[in-house]
Amino acid sequence: MNVSPPAPTAAAATTTAPPAAAAAPRERLLEAAALLFYREGVHVGVEALCRAAGVSKRSMYQLFTSKDEVLAASLERAALTYGEALIPREDDRPPRARILHIFEQLESLSHSPAYRGCPLVATAVELKDPEHPASKVARRFKDMLTDHFHQEARRAGVPDPEQLARQLTVVFDGSSVRAVVQAQPLHGLAVTTATTLLEAAGLRQEA
Amino acid sequence: MNVSPPAPTAAAATTTAPPAAAAAPRERLLEAAALLFYREGVHVGVEALCRAAGVSKRSMYQLFTSKDEVLAASLERAALTYGEALIPREDDRPPRARILHIFEQLESLSHSPAYRGCPLVATAVELKDPEHPASKVARRFKDMLTDHFHQEARRAGVPDPEQLARQLTVVFDGSSVRAVVQAQPLHGLAVTTATTLLEAAGLRQEA
Repeated sequence: MNVSPPAPTAAAATTTAPPAAAAAPRERLLEAAALLFYREGVHVGVEALCRAAGVSKRSMYQLFTSKDEVLAASLERAALTYGEALIPREDDRPPRARILHIFEQLESLSHSPAYRGCPLVATAVELKDPEHPASKVARRFKDMLTDHFHQEARRAGVPDPEQLARQLTVVFDGSSVRAVVQAQPLHGLAVTTATTLLEAAGLRQEA
Repeated sequence: MNVSPPAPTAAAATTTAPPAAAAAPRERLLEAAALLFYREGVHVGVEALCRAAGVSKRSMYQLFTSKDEVLAASLERAALTYGEALIPREDDRPPRARILHIFEQLESLSHSPAYRGCPLVATAVELKDPEHPASKVARRFKDMLTDHFHQEARRAGVPDPEQLARQLTVVFDGSSVRAVVQAQPLHGLAVTTATTLLEAAGLRQEA
């Protein structure tokens, strides 16, 4: 799934690409599932899913015990792609810049017509069942984002890195939800709100 | 719909109450729709909806042209209830306290097992179609919350009330999403994050 490569134009272009026919059935199913569930929602049925993947229902049930399992596995894949688009690789920038990088990437994504918000949030909101395996995937990956903020905040030596990390996650999620509800780019709102929290925590420009 | 009365225990108790059989079919449909769409999602079908409302499909289509119209009308109703639970009536508290009141109410709601986040956000996220009549309802009511913040911020004389209002909406939505994804109460996160933004805008305790 390419819901969220760094360049929004690329996102718009690639989300419509069908999974490569040469890929193995499992790969094709996960690709198609990640794409369809993100674009249309978790209620896409098994028929439509198998049709899009070019895989028979029988093959699907040989590979996965249920649609719920496909959903959880495909969300895991979507989350990895999303994380790669957002979280910077190791570099020598200070924590403040590395944290803001994530919000800058989110701002870029919000320009894409294919952007429908955070796939983790969307799945949890749609499922309304915290015990669903895909809701657990959503929680785990959302915690990874918070952990990443936490690490950077600790590296910067802020007084309460855990609190700042949770607050940044709230701003991240609220911003991505806003892009969906308003159906328009964020116009800097994610970055300025994150910046306000960073500065309130003592993380100024040079930090 | 009672997704969000001020007391979370009341929310848990009343969301399971069926619509009064004595009410008119239109009322019963809107009540049942608001309840079902919030609890299960926008994909609840017309059959299930009519069954829950105790109304025939024929009657439904005499009252509404489509399920989409029922969804939009019921969301409007849910939004009013939600707004009433959150936004304080006129009183003589200063803007800071009146703004924080909204986040305190959100914290309370997050304790209810029946809370599935903001109904406006959920509907927009599930529909993935900004032109759907219910997505337009979501946008309109979300803007009303921002306008409310804006009014209070202006009354407090902050330098950029519009910016603060949008930031507070981001924190509101990010917090309510967090309650859903984490499936646990907010434990003060909404209030402390909003407080940080208020203080950064110069709105301190006495304001």
